[in-house]
Amino acid sequence: MEMKKKKIVVMGGGTGTFTVLSGLKKYPLDLSAIVAMADDGGSTGILRDELGVLPPGDVRQCLVALSSSDKLMRDLINYRFANGHFQGHSFGNILLSALEKVTGSFDQAVEKASDILRIHGKVIPATLDKVRLVAEFEDRKIIGEGKISESNLHGLKRIYLSPKARGNKKAIEAIGNADAIVIGPGNFYSSLIPNMLVFGIPQAVKKSKAIKIYVCNLMTRNGQTSDFTVKVFAEKIEKYLGCKLDYVIFNTKIPDSVLLKKYSLEGEKITAIDMGLDKKKFIGADLISRKLPKISNQDMLKRTLIRHNPDKLAKIILELI
Amino acid sequence: MEMKKKKIVVMGGGTGTFTVLSGLKKYPLDLSAIVAMADDGGSTGILRDELGVLPPGDVRQCLVALSSSDKLMRDLINYRFANGHFQGHSFGNILLSALEKVTGSFDQAVEKASDILRIHGKVIPATLDKVRLVAEFEDRKIIGEGKISESNLHGLKRIYLSPKARGNKKAIEAIGNADAIVIGPGNFYSSLIPNMLVFGIPQAVKKSKAIKIYVCNLMTRNGQTSDFTVKVFAEKIEKYLGCKLDYVIFNTKIPDSVLLKKYSLEGEKITAIDMGLDKKKFIGADLISRKLPKISNQDMLKRTLIRHNPDKLAKIILELI
Repeated sequence: MEMKKKKIVVMGGGTGTFTVLSGLKKYPLDLSAIVAMADDGGSTGILRDELGVLPPGDVRQCLVALSSSDKLMRDLINYRFANGHFQGHSFGNILLSALEKVTGSFDQAVEKASDILRIHGKVIPATLDKVRLVAEFEDRKIIGEGKISESNLHGLKRIYLSPKARGNKKAIEAIGNADAIVIGPGNFYSSLIPNMLVFGIPQAVKKSKAIKIYVCNLMTRNGQTSDFTVKVFAEKIEKYLGCKLDYVIFNTKIPDSVLLKKYSLEGEKITAIDMGLDKKKFIGADLISRKLPKISNQDMLKRTLIRHNPDKLAKIILELI
Repeated sequence: MEMKKKKIVVMGGGTGTFTVLSGLKKYPLDLSAIVAMADDGGSTGILRDELGVLPPGDVRQCLVALSSSDKLMRDLINYRFANGHFQGHSFGNILLSALEKVTGSFDQAVEKASDILRIHGKVIPATLDKVRLVAEFEDRKIIGEGKISESNLHGLKRIYLSPKARGNKKAIEAIGNADAIVIGPGNFYSSLIPNMLVFGIPQAVKKSKAIKIYVCNLMTRNGQTSDFTVKVFAEKIEKYLGCKLDYVIFNTKIPDSVLLKKYSLEGEKITAIDMGLDKKKFIGADLISRKLPKISNQDMLKRTLIRHNPDKLAKIILELI
């Protein structure tokens, strides 16, 4: 008798989600990645502005994570042009944008790219609406995920998508059918929260019978998540979701001092662990990776030097579901 | 008992070669397309200049002609961006250039693209050297295939590649093993002759036991092939090859008067048929297409409105081999 594969939904976008997917894909699971669609920085931002397409960058990373194609194909997708008109653009972004133009829809573009890259699982945009992330303060607004991710958000009153985004039906369906939902790790305001600002997504999570797991960030970010402890991170996620998490996975191991010093120069500190956490809900473990990530150098931001080990993380998630 | 497939080498580049391949690929043949590598106009020229890659344009057209992928995939490869930094670039050209960067060689790039597009047969660059086409006159030179194809070549003394190009080993091998070699149709000085200027290619054709077939152009080009008759076209090809052709296929049917008038405005006339041609060598037939070509609009130059019918052409070639 064939065991029915467990349905896991991973929610986020960016390098953190790449890491979770890379770990989980080694197991016989039915994986779906729900990806935030507010990105407007770098190559993705230029493609949005010039071609009017939806943001390809985070989708590309998830496709590569789930791809069973050969190394050359994955290298091709991550390849960034170094010169000329194409400078800074990754080939995968250009592929997704061209596919969107040819098929007339980003949804079909992602499906075709999934075929080309022979992915195990599904990559699902959280919304197919064209939106910008807006951070609202008492006296001003910052518009655009790219700008917001570089800004000090002290005094943030509200963060929202403009115009209002409706959840992608496929994303809502995947959440509804999931056995487990894994949120994070990832840039808090630019990769995680934008998913939860899409109308229909937090509602579906709340309604879903899935086990809800949050993977807490290893580090805090100056001016964004300054001084967030594990508990604060989790509570903020619960607030945006509108429901309780079942598990919060957090790191207990202090990273290499040389790396920590590099981070501290930019005011980024290790996420502190609160006293007296409920051990049934808060699952602590050594989650630190000792290897550099297997993604292209250009995508490897400084802050990803201290990062989750995909295999350790996957193992703990598997024990919870 | 399985019949051994006949080995056919098609030599050229551009729309004419696309047409021959489209017709021949419906038959159980072992097809190889040898493609001129002097192109430096348009999207291809920009990619050469900015990225230092080999010219992808003609290779792309042959790959699409031989592809067994679905229509969406072929549309993707031919898709040209309409806006922004990417304006005018076809996606297939970007794919080949990115693959050349990732693999480190154009040869491997073409092989990988052949896999992706599931092509029947092989597409082989005539040379892997980076060359420019040079047209030499008494008192001046025109450098670059793009410029040469737009120029009046009256008084042309010599046409050559600079620096000297060595034949791609795979191309020379394919010619040596061929049962038949089909040259043309195609732009005379920018698609056909550049193949024959590569050291090793005409020598291999001369040495090969293959049946040598030339498909004569339907129309002459003002300032380039003005007043060329069928016999003149064939003799010029024989001069560049350094050997005799076995067959010359030419068109006997007068095209639509409206189209002819359009062409005549640019000094382009129907190729005249000489009196008393040897009927064993010169094979005349109605070769005109009544349908528009199935390639993207952007690639459809005005002069391809009067064009060969792929099926009629393939049928005659098959009768000769």
